[in-house]
Amino acid sequence: MKLRVLAALAWVPAALSLSTPAAAQFAKPEDAIQYRQSALFVLGQHFTRLGAMANGRVPFDAKLAQENADVVAAMARLPWAAFEPGTDKGAPHKARPAVWAEPAKFKEHADKLVAQSTQLAAAARTGSLDAVKTSFSATAASCKACHDAYRDR
Amino acid sequence: MKLRVLAALAWVPAALSLSTPAAAQFAKPEDAIQYRQSALFVLGQHFTRLGAMANGRVPFDAKLAQENADVVAAMARLPWAAFEPGTDKGAPHKARPAVWAEPAKFKEHADKLVAQSTQLAAAARTGSLDAVKTSFSATAASCKACHDAYRDR
Repeated sequence: MKLRVLAALAWVPAALSLSTPAAAQFAKPEDAIQYRQSALFVLGQHFTRLGAMANGRVPFDAKLAQENADVVAAMARLPWAAFEPGTDKGAPHKARPAVWAEPAKFKEHADKLVAQSTQLAAAARTGSLDAVKTSFSATAASCKACHDAYRDR
Repeated sequence: MKLRVLAALAWVPAALSLSTPAAAQFAKPEDAIQYRQSALFVLGQHFTRLGAMANGRVPFDAKLAQENADVVAAMARLPWAAFEPGTDKGAPHKARPAVWAEPAKFKEHADKLVAQSTQLAAAARTGSLDAVKTSFSATAASCKACHDAYRDR
């Protein structure tokens, strides 16, 4: 981790809010790209673990399900601020131009994931596999819908 | 942002804890490597933002400080399970062999970061810049000590 703070870093309030322009949160476009890829990768790992339980590939463990769902819900809030204008270039990535061409629609997808992953964490907290299955499926559908529209294969 | 989920994450125990065998959490060593690098990158971005305030490079904003510190505290719990045996190879990384040669000592560093980042989040919650400065400095020193011992330059 870099402990030296970049002097050029300009501060923008509400850094993690979806509704806030994210300009200049990141020192360089490649940092924003790496950040969103990193957050989504961590999210994906925990979502996959939850899916293994939801789909019966591994035994359901309520405590583990809750832990993974909590990480998913926390991570789901992070990537979106890093799709700020100007971050369509700078490093290899799979986000399509539509992300920046139709930001309101993209934000709808992001907001939906945040809401659904919060519901997923609540479902996991009930300890009910059926509740987890239902909420996992809904969340997975949101992931897919956004990827289909905004991510290159 | 709503911090409810992050607050919940701050208390995530077993699956993500240092004391849990991480075997088979990751499909492949390269996934573990990418996961720990991702978690540490996200952590570093938020720690840097906090540092900009702690070091006076940007105005102190208590709410932003708290949000960033909460993400730091949540992320600080994640990377360590991904240093499982067998993940010293598989993709480029900077972790030194000492990570796997002296796991108990490495775990001490990891545990210390978890404790200090939790304290940092608590300090940020007080709204006191002085408290943030003190706790930030202590946490930064822990980052550096671990990097000096376990990360290639």
